[in-house]
Amino acid sequence: MEKKSIEYVLPEEIEKRSFEIIAAELAERGITLPAEQDPVTRRVIHTSADFDYAETMTYSENAVEIAKNLIKNGADIVTDTNMALAGINKKVLASFGGEAHCYMADADVAAMAKERKTTRAAISMELASKLEKPVIFAVGNAPTALIQIYELMQERDWCPAFVIGVPVGFVNVEAAKELIMETDVPYIINRGRKGGSNVAAAICNALLYELKRIN
Amino acid sequence: MEKKSIEYVLPEEIEKRSFEIIAAELAERGITLPAEQDPVTRRVIHTSADFDYAETMTYSENAVEIAKNLIKNGADIVTDTNMALAGINKKVLASFGGEAHCYMADADVAAMAKERKTTRAAISMELASKLEKPVIFAVGNAPTALIQIYELMQERDWCPAFVIGVPVGFVNVEAAKELIMETDVPYIINRGRKGGSNVAAAICNALLYELKRIN
Repeated sequence: MEKKSIEYVLPEEIEKRSFEIIAAELAERGITLPAEQDPVTRRVIHTSADFDYAETMTYSENAVEIAKNLIKNGADIVTDTNMALAGINKKVLASFGGEAHCYMADADVAAMAKERKTTRAAISMELASKLEKPVIFAVGNAPTALIQIYELMQERDWCPAFVIGVPVGFVNVEAAKELIMETDVPYIINRGRKGGSNVAAAICNALLYELKRIN
Repeated sequence: MEKKSIEYVLPEEIEKRSFEIIAAELAERGITLPAEQDPVTRRVIHTSADFDYAETMTYSENAVEIAKNLIKNGADIVTDTNMALAGINKKVLASFGGEAHCYMADADVAAMAKERKTTRAAISMELASKLEKPVIFAVGNAPTALIQIYELMQERDWCPAFVIGVPVGFVNVEAAKELIMETDVPYIINRGRKGGSNVAAAICNALLYELKRIN
């Protein structure tokens, strides 16, 4: 077999070129993203190679600025999967004083979920709601996590600092996202079925990298 | 604000219903997946809510059977991201005697990559190629990992037991996948730009759950 080769692109060049390609293809499609949202939506497209996100990513008013300010002031991030936790740049987050958490694999979370006949994700959100500092909830998997956040907001005098709502799937996913959009919580949500732990992590990283770039 | 509620679906029911919806929509689109590949492609759609995968997932001959036999006989899985590692069901893998590894965050991998002006993913694949047991390479992020696997196959008398090749992106991603498809290695690859760590983990889990279901 004849050996083939691919033009070698330096690691640091790969990302730069990728974003240039995304920009060019967005332009071809006649899509102009609002300046504030642009780095976030582009990073989601970068992580999925899916331009549908340019049409479905939804931001509450000044969402990106609010989320960036939270991180700059040391907010924590709580995810609903260990995959999302693994994908978030925790070093950059720590440089602002924040920590990332995921309670999904904790033994007591599993036990409580079983006892209360609910999901571990719902229990995880409840635990996170008790953290005594501002928390960005980054939900990439379980619509039940978003539903739980909504229920907690109704039951108690509590509102999360921020919700990144990008669960993926076919059962209750769209409805759970709509619920959050009806509240006053600042959010970044991907309407529809699409999302994922990779998308949740990409949104967090886009915010972190914007802050790092400016600082 | 009037409190809304969403029909509560038991955790174990959510996945079942999701797969029923996927089956129905595949049928609507007139897509019949080959029986062997069906559980794998469906789980990829489940993790992405993206039916494009039904058209682009590509399998070498008997790929699913080969991969399942490898796992059944205790093969390890090496990923190119900690996200994919986090997503793989390591408990089920361990029940067959296998372990999952990711070398990306190792300090010596970063040092070697810098010294040799390549990516950490490429160095990780080289390290994995020295493991003295059958290894399934699960690449969800870095095309350079697939290129490195190809180069190692050309340079040495070495062939990986199996390649799951689903990096995502815009630079060299499609070409790297095509390279692997030209070799004799058994593979599951998603042609085109799409893929991701979540997709790599979903493919591994589909294989693991098929084996668990049968055993």
